[in-house]
Amino acid sequence: MIHLFTDFGLEGPYLGEMEAVVRRIAPEVPVVRLMNDVPAFSPRPAAYLLAALAERFAPGDVALCVVDPGVGTERRALALECGGRWFVGPDNGLFELVLRRHAAARCWEIVWRPERLSASFHGRDLFAPIAARLARGDGAGLRPCSPMRRTDWPDELQEVIYVDRYGNAWTGMRAESMGDDGVLVAAGRRLGRRTTFGDAAPGEAFWYVNSAGLVEIAVREGSAAARLGLAIGAPVEVVAP
Amino acid sequence: MIHLFTDFGLEGPYLGEMEAVVRRIAPEVPVVRLMNDVPAFSPRPAAYLLAALAERFAPGDVALCVVDPGVGTERRALALECGGRWFVGPDNGLFELVLRRHAAARCWEIVWRPERLSASFHGRDLFAPIAARLARGDGAGLRPCSPMRRTDWPDELQEVIYVDRYGNAWTGMRAESMGDDGVLVAAGRRLGRRTTFGDAAPGEAFWYVNSAGLVEIAVREGSAAARLGLAIGAPVEVVAP
Amino acid sequence: MIHLFTDFGLEGPYLGEMEAVVRRIAPEVPVVRLMNDVPAFSPRPAAYLLAALAERFAPGDVALCVVDPGVGTERRALALECGGRWFVGPDNGLFELVLRRHAAARCWEIVWRPERLSASFHGRDLFAPIAARLARGDGAGLRPCSPMRRTDWPDELQEVIYVDRYGNAWTGMRAESMGDDGVLVAAGRRLGRRTTFGDAAPGEAFWYVNSAGLVEIAVREGSAAARLGLAIGAPVEVVAP
Repeated sequence: MIHLFTDFGLEGPYLGEMEAVVRRIAPEVPVVRLMNDVPAFSPRPAAYLLAALAERFAPGDVALCVVDPGVGTERRALALECGGRWFVGPDNGLFELVLRRHAAARCWEIVWRPERLSASFHGRDLFAPIAARLARGDGAGLRPCSPMRRTDWPDELQEVIYVDRYGNAWTGMRAESMGDDGVLVAAGRRLGRRTTFGDAAPGEAFWYVNSAGLVEIAVREGSAAARLGLAIGAPVEVVAP
Repeated sequence: MIHLFTDFGLEGPYLGEMEAVVRRIAPEVPVVRLMNDVPAFSPRPAAYLLAALAERFAPGDVALCVVDPGVGTERRALALECGGRWFVGPDNGLFELVLRRHAAARCWEIVWRPERLSASFHGRDLFAPIAARLARGDGAGLRPCSPMRRTDWPDELQEVIYVDRYGNAWTGMRAESMGDDGVLVAAGRRLGRRTTFGDAAPGEAFWYVNSAGLVEIAVREGSAAARLGLAIGAPVEVVAP
Repeated sequence: MIHLFTDFGLEGPYLGEMEAVVRRIAPEVPVVRLMNDVPAFSPRPAAYLLAALAERFAPGDVALCVVDPGVGTERRALALECGGRWFVGPDNGLFELVLRRHAAARCWEIVWRPERLSASFHGRDLFAPIAARLARGDGAGLRPCSPMRRTDWPDELQEVIYVDRYGNAWTGMRAESMGDDGVLVAAGRRLGRRTTFGDAAPGEAFWYVNSAGLVEIAVREGSAAARLGLAIGAPVEVVAP
C-alpha cells in the first residue's frame, strides 16, 4: 500500500498528477490519500503527524511524503526503511520523529533522476516513481546516507500541530507523556482530561487522547480552535493537577 | 465495491485512515469515496441522503456509513442487508429510510471488537474491518438484532438536507412526492418546477428533480442557498399550484 | 488509467457517483481524481488546463472530462482519440486546445444513451459509462463527427486560468511562448522570470514555468492572487524586457 502524505491540499492537479505516476508504475498496489492538508511548508509539525500516523503502517507499506519548501534547492531526496516500512521524501526533518522512534532505521539518498525533472514538483517527478518502485520491491537508484537530524526538536512537541475541520486542536504530544490526570494549559486555560466527547459537558473544553494517540484539545459540540483561539504553532503546557 | 459515506469532511487523516484499513483487508475490492461532507453529527438528514444515493447500489456493494455523534457511548454498531447490498454503521437512525424502503432488510449487531478500539474513531477501528470483510463475503462477528427505528421521521423530509458547492439546496423529498406542477415554498418564496437549468431564466429560483431523485432548489447561474437564505434544516412546504 | 477532470469540486456526491459507475464497468482500470476544481461552468480556461495536463497522458489513458454548463441542452457528447489517448466529454470547446495540438485527432459523437439519463448529470449517466468502456477497448455507441471548433480562442491564452491553494495564478500560456527574459505584466505590475521559488526574494512577485509547463505568477512565501488582486480571467500581457 502507498500512503500519500503531503501539504498539497485537496485542490488543484497536484495530488492527482502524483497519484497518476504511482498508479502507472505500480497499478496493482493500492494507493490511499492518507492526509494531504498537513500544515503547508512546515516539516516540523508534519514530522510529528507522520510519526503518529505511521504507527498503523504495515511491513511493505510505502509512505510518499511531500512537505518540501526547499524544492529546487540543494536539499537531498531520501528513502528510509524501518521494519519493512518505507518513507520517501525530502531531507528536511520530515522524518525526524520516525527516525528517533526506530533505532534500526536505514537511510538512503535517492540518486536516480528522471528524464524530466520540474523545478517545483519533485513529488510527481522524483519521489513518486521511487515510492512506486519500492512498493514493487525495486530499490534501484538509492545510495546509503546519513539523514539530516533535528536534535533540537523535542520528543513531545508541546504545540498545536493540526486543527481539524471540527476545530479540534491536535498537539505533538503522545498520550504517554501525560498522566491520566494531567492538566494541560492552552491559551491561558486549564484543561482536564476526558476519555471521550461523551464524558464532557456540552461546551466544555478538555483534552483527550485522539485516534492517532496524540493529545488533542476539544470542545464538545464546538470548535476548540475558535473557542480558545488556537492555531498551528500555539504553545501548550503540562502542569501538575 | 465499498462506498464511503461519512461526515468526516475531506480534510485530515480520517478518510484516509479508514480507507487504508479497508484496502488492507480487501485489496481487490474497489473503494469509492462516495460522499463525505454529509451534514456533521446529524443522522437525520444523512439518512435521507443515504437512501437516495443507495438507489444506485448493486448487489454485493457495501456502504461504510459513519455519521456517529454517539461514538464512545452505548449505541450499537450495525450491519444491514437489503437485496445483497450491505450497510455498515452506527445504530442511530442513519439507516431509517433504507430500512423503511426495503421491507425485507435484515439486521445484525456487530459484536466483534478489534484488539485496539479507539474511543473516538469507530469508523476506522470497528466499521471499516467489518465492511471490508462483508465485501469479501465474510459475515463473522454479527448477531441478529432489531435496529432502533425513528418512526417519527417522515417518509419525505420537507427540509433542506444538503447544500452543494454551487449553492443548490437538496431537500429530503423524492420526486414522486411532488406533482409535475407542484409549487414549493421556501423562505417565503413560491417556486415552480423546471426540468433542468436550461429551462429557467438566468437568476430565476426554481425546483427540479436532481440526479439523486430528490427535489432540489436551484437558481440558474446563481446560489439558491445565498439568494434565498437556505441552510441545512430550513423547512420547505408543498402548496397547491 | 482513467483521469477524472471536472468542475464538480471536491464536495458532494458528484465525483463519487461518477467514479462508482466507472469502477463498476471497469474494476481493473486505475481511476485517478486528476483535477476537479477546474473553474466552474467555463470550458475556455478548462480547455487550456486540460491540454497542459494531457501532456503526461499515455496511450490507453482515458480522460473523463466534465465541464458542462450546457447539460440538458442540445450540445453533443464527444469521444476524441489522439495517439491512443481518449478524451470523453461535452462538445463545448473543452477539447479545443487538445484538438489544435494533435492534427491527427479523430472525433466521434456519442450516440449511445443509457436507460436512465438524468437531466443534470451526464457525467455519471453518459460520459462515465463510455469512458469506462473505452478504457476496456470497447468503442461501441460512437459515430464519426466533426467537433465544434473555437477558432477565436488563441493558441496561448493571456489570462489567469486557475488559482491554486497557495495563491499561485496559472496562465493559459505555455513556456515556449515566453523568452527566458520575457517580462509579464499583470495587474499593472512588471514581473520578471525566476527559475524557481528559491531564486526569488521573500515577498517578491515573479513568473516561472510551472510543473504543467504553463507560465505561472507567484510570490515567494505569499499569495500572488491576493497580493496582485488576480482572479480567474484576469488579463496578462507580455512586454519587451
